[in-house]
Amino acid sequence: MAAAAATTRRRTASYSTLSTKHNPSLPTNHLTNKNGLGFLSENPVRIRPLSLSCSRPAKLPMKVSATSAATPVMETSKLSSGAVPTIVDVDLGDRSYPIYIGSGLLDQPDLLQRHVHGKRVLVVTNTTVAPLYLDKVVSALTVGNPNVTVESVILPDGEKYKDMDTLMKVFDKAIESRLDRRCTFVALGGGVIGDMCGYAAASFLRGVNFIQIPTTVMAQVDSSVGGKTGINHRLGKNLIGAFYQPQCVLIDTNTLNTLPDRELASGLAEVIKYGLIRDAPFFEWQEKNIQALMARDPDAFAYAIKRSCENKAEVVSQDEKESGLRATLNLGHTFGHAIETSYGYGHWLHGEAVAAGTVMAVDMSYRLGWIDESIVERTNNILKQAKLPTTPPEMMTIDMFKSVMAVDKKVADGLLRLILLKGPLGSCVFTGDYDRKALDETLHAFCKS
Amino acid sequence: MAAAAATTRRRTASYSTLSTKHNPSLPTNHLTNKNGLGFLSENPVRIRPLSLSCSRPAKLPMKVSATSAATPVMETSKLSSGAVPTIVDVDLGDRSYPIYIGSGLLDQPDLLQRHVHGKRVLVVTNTTVAPLYLDKVVSALTVGNPNVTVESVILPDGEKYKDMDTLMKVFDKAIESRLDRRCTFVALGGGVIGDMCGYAAASFLRGVNFIQIPTTVMAQVDSSVGGKTGINHRLGKNLIGAFYQPQCVLIDTNTLNTLPDRELASGLAEVIKYGLIRDAPFFEWQEKNIQALMARDPDAFAYAIKRSCENKAEVVSQDEKESGLRATLNLGHTFGHAIETSYGYGHWLHGEAVAAGTVMAVDMSYRLGWIDESIVERTNNILKQAKLPTTPPEMMTIDMFKSVMAVDKKVADGLLRLILLKGPLGSCVFTGDYDRKALDETLHAFCKS
Repeated sequence: MAAAAATTRRRTASYSTLSTKHNPSLPTNHLTNKNGLGFLSENPVRIRPLSLSCSRPAKLPMKVSATSAATPVMETSKLSSGAVPTIVDVDLGDRSYPIYIGSGLLDQPDLLQRHVHGKRVLVVTNTTVAPLYLDKVVSALTVGNPNVTVESVILPDGEKYKDMDTLMKVFDKAIESRLDRRCTFVALGGGVIGDMCGYAAASFLRGVNFIQIPTTVMAQVDSSVGGKTGINHRLGKNLIGAFYQPQCVLIDTNTLNTLPDRELASGLAEVIKYGLIRDAPFFEWQEKNIQALMARDPDAFAYAIKRSCENKAEVVSQDEKESGLRATLNLGHTFGHAIETSYGYGHWLHGEAVAAGTVMAVDMSYRLGWIDESIVERTNNILKQAKLPTTPPEMMTIDMFKSVMAVDKKVADGLLRLILLKGPLGSCVFTGDYDRKALDETLHAFCKS
Repeated sequence: MAAAAATTRRRTASYSTLSTKHNPSLPTNHLTNKNGLGFLSENPVRIRPLSLSCSRPAKLPMKVSATSAATPVMETSKLSSGAVPTIVDVDLGDRSYPIYIGSGLLDQPDLLQRHVHGKRVLVVTNTTVAPLYLDKVVSALTVGNPNVTVESVILPDGEKYKDMDTLMKVFDKAIESRLDRRCTFVALGGGVIGDMCGYAAASFLRGVNFIQIPTTVMAQVDSSVGGKTGINHRLGKNLIGAFYQPQCVLIDTNTLNTLPDRELASGLAEVIKYGLIRDAPFFEWQEKNIQALMARDPDAFAYAIKRSCENKAEVVSQDEKESGLRATLNLGHTFGHAIETSYGYGHWLHGEAVAAGTVMAVDMSYRLGWIDESIVERTNNILKQAKLPTTPPEMMTIDMFKSVMAVDKKVADGLLRLILLKGPLGSCVFTGDYDRKALDETLHAFCKS
């Protein structure tokens, strides 16, 4: 059976995923499913690996009528079909938690409130997201729950503020508000907010509970899941941080309605990544549906988010602290981080740098003779359709790449390990065992000097 | 049998320890044992609870001749008797580690080298300790081990530098040195260095290995064991940090030879604490041997350190993240932290503040009717003999205490929980269920305004 094959094959050392032929029944007409729940109901078992559970549990009450009065932004048309979340579980023993995915989930206070510990909450958000969703989140935290008090800290928006000075503002607020160990931090925003709030939660009083409410595609499909938290150092990205898991991730897909096009495309770089490294059918689905995604089709997005979270959850469940498998999620990131660090945070979005980095990693894989040229072409093609860059900024030099890549977290005993594609679509390796010439050639091919 | 009673009783909810009558065989003439190993050989089994092991394992080679050439500071007279370390294990599943205790252990490179992961080491120390022991530690890390390279970062000395700005210097050095995830951080110094280096290790690249080499009594008997790491915030002590366990703790008691008297006495405040909260026979031993300790008798110190580490290891093994039992190790610390924070870091040493705080906690316990007056007197008496303060600084006001204590990590949902003595010597409680009047009376008794 396809599901068993998928589960088994995903556990092999080469990190291959199922190829199309193993899953011929995967529907390609998913977009005809208009129940607002993605495509789960069509194959609730087959896509469920051992380490995940994807279900619509009967225990979740639909508190629609109770909460609608407090939720002015809610789209009523979504309510009947979108109120029951899809759930993807991240299986990490006593650190397991659910990812809730659905439209209008912020209008269901119960979902959020069941994961709040203690009576005090600190919402960490930024100047862009606060005017859009802070009131809504405060309402979701407090409706019918008068014992809870909510503080908030609003940080400046952008990767360039993902630093220690800005992080200290979170500690300042938490301490001045006299929050104690039984408080809960809530990250409301994109990847930067999630990473910073998570690291603050990991460190405040040596660790308090936290909840992720990601509001960008990037955060919903990747950064909010799996417990990687941290901040940047002037010499490199995410060099200071912690592995620290949230109590839950709540993805209200309605928050994407306010996301700028460029941010939306940036998140697609990570969606495309899952297809390339471990999920060929998902990549093929993306090729067919990239225009629907660019047109913000809600069902297409619901599916892309769910499938991405499933991939992420499965990898994280097997390798929480990135001893091997998890590193494969960083396809294109080593090149991408070099771009972000050298070009200056804020010029390119993270996903834009990852897109160019992915093209470079795929190019290098091809130079090593590890993949067919068709994969190079298909990667370039889908990224271009997603309006993402496929070359680094012109100012990038070979030395810039080498300098930043030397402090990458994946260096071990001086050896830079990379995620490279190898084999059929959906297969990759994480290795330091490659011909250095190929890396040099790739850098020369993409840099003028 | 006494040992079984001890093990069982220490697991009860009230955190009582064995009383004297359960252990009548505990020798009081320990100082006549001059083998340089403390007093382990006299009762190697009886004082060994389930979660600890204290032994002289045959597997440890005595690399005396191989290392003596590289160890100019070594006291030869100690070598034959002091080279085999006492080992106390901290039992935390896959995060378990040994505490090595003995004189001249820095002259045994094998002890340290077996716990170094990777080829790169960063020693974190301060301007006081570096001139005394940095060369010795570098030698211990590299003798016969040419593949290892050692970097070091020397921080300013003192509690007032236990802050984010100083911590960043550790990250700067690690990143500029291009250390990777397979490196090892080594904390060489007192409690401040251990806490900062540990938090840096917890956060650098989301976690690297680290080793504690404590060089003060305070660090050897308390702060280096158990994985509490962190830094201060201007509004309170240790408010930012992580629970992060070392690979090992290496206590070379010879390092105490260079410790100033005031630092030495400061550490005794924590030794006395163990007796008061859970180990009456140890307190009684301290009463008999306080003059020997103040005279720096090496055997007395070896025993005090070993017994303290055993108590600490047992508590940490049962409650790593301070959900209850572990909090009892903070007797006097809530009052003490208020003193340190209000008076300004650096005026009083941590143990001095803890000593005054302990007297206040004991006073409050007595006012609540929870202990006999004799315990109040004995506490005052032994602290005075240790030349430690028994009242807070004159500048401390009631408001200062209340203001800092309100942000203490032991506040839960607004309620300040305290460690108070209750019952016979060696028994305590961690509770928020006490008459607020007693706290007010204690504050009034010790403050002028």
